[in-house]
Amino acid sequence: MAIPAKQEPHPEWSERLLSGLLGLLGTDRFRTDLPTREGYAWDNTGLRWLPQGVALPETATEVAAILSLCHQARFPVVPRGAGSGNVGGALAVQGGLVLSTQRLNRVIEINPADRLAVVEPGVVNRELQELLAPHALFWPPDPSSARVCTVGGNLAMCAAGPGAVRYGVTRDWVLGLTAVLADGTIIRCGGRTSKGVVGYDLTRLLVGSEGTLAVVTQATLKLAPRPEARRQLRLVFAEVATATRAVVELMSRGDALSAIEFLDAACLGLLRDGGGMAIPVDGRAMLLLEVAGDAAEVGELATRTAARVAALGPLETVVATNAEESRQVWEAREALSPTLKRLAPKRINEDVVVPVSRLPELIAGLERISRESGIPIVNFGHAGNGNIHVNLLVDATDNATMRRVEPVLKQIFGLVMTLEGSLSGEHGVGVQKRPFVAMEMDPAALALQKRIKALFDPRAILNPGKLLP
Amino acid sequence: MAIPAKQEPHPEWSERLLSGLLGLLGTDRFRTDLPTREGYAWDNTGLRWLPQGVALPETATEVAAILSLCHQARFPVVPRGAGSGNVGGALAVQGGLVLSTQRLNRVIEINPADRLAVVEPGVVNRELQELLAPHALFWPPDPSSARVCTVGGNLAMCAAGPGAVRYGVTRDWVLGLTAVLADGTIIRCGGRTSKGVVGYDLTRLLVGSEGTLAVVTQATLKLAPRPEARRQLRLVFAEVATATRAVVELMSRGDALSAIEFLDAACLGLLRDGGGMAIPVDGRAMLLLEVAGDAAEVGELATRTAARVAALGPLETVVATNAEESRQVWEAREALSPTLKRLAPKRINEDVVVPVSRLPELIAGLERISRESGIPIVNFGHAGNGNIHVNLLVDATDNATMRRVEPVLKQIFGLVMTLEGSLSGEHGVGVQKRPFVAMEMDPAALALQKRIKALFDPRAILNPGKLLP
Repeated sequence: MAIPAKQEPHPEWSERLLSGLLGLLGTDRFRTDLPTREGYAWDNTGLRWLPQGVALPETATEVAAILSLCHQARFPVVPRGAGSGNVGGALAVQGGLVLSTQRLNRVIEINPADRLAVVEPGVVNRELQELLAPHALFWPPDPSSARVCTVGGNLAMCAAGPGAVRYGVTRDWVLGLTAVLADGTIIRCGGRTSKGVVGYDLTRLLVGSEGTLAVVTQATLKLAPRPEARRQLRLVFAEVATATRAVVELMSRGDALSAIEFLDAACLGLLRDGGGMAIPVDGRAMLLLEVAGDAAEVGELATRTAARVAALGPLETVVATNAEESRQVWEAREALSPTLKRLAPKRINEDVVVPVSRLPELIAGLERISRESGIPIVNFGHAGNGNIHVNLLVDATDNATMRRVEPVLKQIFGLVMTLEGSLSGEHGVGVQKRPFVAMEMDPAALALQKRIKALFDPRAILNPGKLLP
Repeated sequence: MAIPAKQEPHPEWSERLLSGLLGLLGTDRFRTDLPTREGYAWDNTGLRWLPQGVALPETATEVAAILSLCHQARFPVVPRGAGSGNVGGALAVQGGLVLSTQRLNRVIEINPADRLAVVEPGVVNRELQELLAPHALFWPPDPSSARVCTVGGNLAMCAAGPGAVRYGVTRDWVLGLTAVLADGTIIRCGGRTSKGVVGYDLTRLLVGSEGTLAVVTQATLKLAPRPEARRQLRLVFAEVATATRAVVELMSRGDALSAIEFLDAACLGLLRDGGGMAIPVDGRAMLLLEVAGDAAEVGELATRTAARVAALGPLETVVATNAEESRQVWEAREALSPTLKRLAPKRINEDVVVPVSRLPELIAGLERISRESGIPIVNFGHAGNGNIHVNLLVDATDNATMRRVEPVLKQIFGLVMTLEGSLSGEHGVGVQKRPFVAMEMDPAALALQKRIKALFDPRAILNPGKLLP
């Protein structure tokens, strides 16, 4: 993306702030040495911004004390989980202190009867799922970074993944939060029940606010019953429009589908040529489906699902009949990311979303933009939500390339706006999409959001340079 | 409830405001005559507060002009849907102008492919459902007032009903809003996609804000596939604890259950004695369940559901095998409200919620409070969400009675707090629960909410006397 890793002039440490943080956290958990700072300078964008220090609090009280000190000193604080974000949300773009949640990683409670878990933000998504599995429960947010990303990062970005088509996104799976405001005030909002309408919905105001309003120190998460079994299907269509009709048809009945993934013609070309996969040559769109349910019924569910779209005439229909075949069916999706990484290790991975019925126009428009610009673009994503990852196969860290790409990105976002979509379905805004937010957001709503930001964080110390332009 | 219908001193009309409203809306749609005002003085609480005028805008622009005029005049505005609320949320407790959404009642778009509907706030919930039925879709919020209540009222209170156990509440079924701020500024937030993470979640901040932050003039609603068929079951247990174990067991697998309703021993007594229903005499808890799905599978779903809790030894299990039997099974729930209305036409209907596992303690505590106070209390509600309607069979409009009841209500809310619950699951705060909000809400979060209110509505004209203490 378009922002080179240039360092703006940083605020100065004051003696008082340095000694305050050192007194609070000691030399073990407050670091200003270069190697440590370098360890917190990166994320999944490939960009680098060096923070001026790193704090590793272990309690909410410590988080409150850190924020209080930085608030007094007007010193930026950048909350950070695992650093697996895609938009630079955890990068110290204006310097300041990275507040890592790594050591706020306790699982405080797992309560199967009330279907909730109470965790600290540094708990890794996958580790939580592993603790929940013996109770036949799971926490639905399933970003592809689940192996490393933290619950806190998921909350900050309102993360999602393929399962969102059935389960919704992070905001739907949070019951309550403890968070620290910019001035060090600790607040609790929400609760432990799946219903509750007392007061304004601060919980969902904080979810997706990308660490610009408060730092979450504890979350009460709503859990879902874990389906006993999953089964995969692969369908190939000659036209994107037909694949889209299949998506609409599949979405129109029941809730058994736990993933409806889409791959465009460019993806299929890569998998055919680069990956040696046998995919019908006239196929221009693939749908990868997953059904989930009881072990006894999942086979029939898969068969029924295929039957529902048979009339649309897919070029190929593969229905897995066991776990091994399921794995093979999903191979196309799994193979895609490594293939793209090989072709363009520093590619741009956008994350647009349009109403489902507009998918054919989106893909056609992206193909046109690719042809006209000469920039290879491949598209795949979560078709049931209209959420497409647009991959520009260029070197995003090369400044000359980026100057050429920037107008193309603007064209892409303009196309998405024409189709009544949004700039981001699940990756967030961070530093990367910030220059484009005004394309989407109503000016009056943007002005109101800025006033909310100023109310929560009057000295603008929390994650400056992110989210709002 | 504890607030008598006393009239506080009202603000004065200014000539400028009167002529401004008259010029905008004409005599047909701006009324100050007593009969009209009396028609907007009531809601489902039985309380009455007379507004000083009634406005009937037909467009967002008119709503903006009304708010702008009232903002300049510092004159209260009370947004009102159908007046079917249970907490006085639509009553002009400090006088002012009732802004009725009755004539903002257009259905602007129904889009089956994108599973969304765009409506104005005055559209009646049931009428929307009837328009959606031919598309095999529905909008999940299902309050018992669905026949009369409006989408705007549902949004204001974050309404719910039995279906919330499967589908969630109003906030989960809104994609975007157009709303007018107190000063007349029109904002648009959210969008037309089921995913979207650009900016703060203003949409969910407005949902459940009870008309104290803005007036919604248009809503883009997310729709769900309408199950082909529903089938009901009735289970009677000897203990609340066993019924609760059944609820936990039922919630732990799959999503087929679209209602898990609970009736306590007092309800069963009323239905047995007053309604002549044949209910096992040692039954102390009834569960009414509903499964929903394809017509071909719903019968088997019902049988399987009964089998899953058979080991808990219900005293009675009735599984409907057709629509007529389903109706009979649900009769217990349907008969309850009329029976209660006959016994205590002006009863207090509370709406507390606790984590599901705490239901036995809640019911035992309520039985104890009833015994000790001598006030008959009967409890039923949405067990899958731990959301219980606590009915005190007294005359809520009698001041002497209410003085006796107030400490009992405090005891009930105290019990709910001990059980880590909330004062309201779906009815809201309004004027009635406002005195108790501080029992539940963290003081720092309350202070923050007040600052949010002041930011949205600096002259405190929007629905004053509601929600926040």
